[in-house]
Amino acid sequence: MLSTSILPLDKGASLSQHVAKVLTVVDESGLDYRLNPMGTVVEGEWDELLKLLTRCFRVLEKESDRISLQAKFDFRKGVRGVIETKIKSVQKEAGRSFRT
Amino acid sequence: MLSTSILPLDKGASLSQHVAKVLTVVDESGLDYRLNPMGTVVEGEWDELLKLLTRCFRVLEKESDRISLQAKFDFRKGVRGVIETKIKSVQKEAGRSFRT
Amino acid sequence: MLSTSILPLDKGASLSQHVAKVLTVVDESGLDYRLNPMGTVVEGEWDELLKLLTRCFRVLEKESDRISLQAKFDFRKGVRGVIETKIKSVQKEAGRSFRT
Amino acid sequence: MLSTSILPLDKGASLSQHVAKVLTVVDESGLDYRLNPMGTVVEGEWDELLKLLTRCFRVLEKESDRISLQAKFDFRKGVRGVIETKIKSVQKEAGRSFRT
Repeated sequence: MLSTSILPLDKGASLSQHVAKVLTVVDESGLDYRLNPMGTVVEGEWDELLKLLTRCFRVLEKESDRISLQAKFDFRKGVRGVIETKIKSVQKEAGRSFRT
Repeated sequence: MLSTSILPLDKGASLSQHVAKVLTVVDESGLDYRLNPMGTVVEGEWDELLKLLTRCFRVLEKESDRISLQAKFDFRKGVRGVIETKIKSVQKEAGRSFRT
Repeated sequence: MLSTSILPLDKGASLSQHVAKVLTVVDESGLDYRLNPMGTVVEGEWDELLKLLTRCFRVLEKESDRISLQAKFDFRKGVRGVIETKIKSVQKEAGRSFRT
Repeated sequence: MLSTSILPLDKGASLSQHVAKVLTVVDESGLDYRLNPMGTVVEGEWDELLKLLTRCFRVLEKESDRISLQAKFDFRKGVRGVIETKIKSVQKEAGRSFRT
């Protein structure tokens, strides 16, 4: 599972149009993902996730001279579908529901 | 706005019960937040967010000898309520809806 | 121990002058730190580190409308002086020296 | 330029031997890098850096069931050798030397 965000650093404070282009690439990748207010979580195998990051980077590279890309991977052997189950398992553990 | 995750590094691969305790602190803080599969986004002023991080850290400190805490802040002057509006503005820009 | 970087997002691609102001605050804090090409590592107690982050944020807030600040904490109970010893212990383990 | 750290999450609080194996891979890659107390900065083209991350991941995957890998990329078009020059340019801007 991968949590990522990618931003141009040379486009001023308003970044929605650049984020939109990158997310369209993620949405068309076929991988399961969830958008949150500060990034995107994507589930997949290592090679799939790196191919996706590369496509996102290439899209932004065309229009920006300085790009900041962050990626945090959490890999757990033999565990799949966790993008769906993780929040539920934490809520069950806490005995309450959280805002999502 | 703050995107954060906090984990004990000395408790093995299964971490839901520790995450649940921290999220209960976030949920009771009164600040607006959204849980995602790899972290939590919280909206608030600088001082409010640092107080919340401190409470989360103190909870985990009681039961763990090694803690990893990550925090990514994105502050934009004069912008509030963005935890609600950010995803919408990106979707509008892209002309499509994304999975959330 | 804290690894941090802080950047204005509305100042274009050249950021050295902003980074220099923040590092001057770190240097004058009295805490032990090491600058690297993509961030700064600072050693201290939780409260000391949060006070320092606040001072850095306030300096940049005066001149920027959008700030990105990242902080990764690694706390290990009862362990101090690790900013000096960590690289050595990894080199000893590897049986070779690394570039620093 | 890439700032990265990679850790097993299922090996307890003492991680030097795992970090040592990964750093040996980095050291033998031929890319320019600098180790700091909380991570490693590597300079290279996008494809080179992703190949290196893959090799590091594969080494750790053999011995760990849960891996946390973080990567922060900062790409600036047409700028090379910055791992050497960045600290100097910040020090020049500040008019003082910092601890490295």
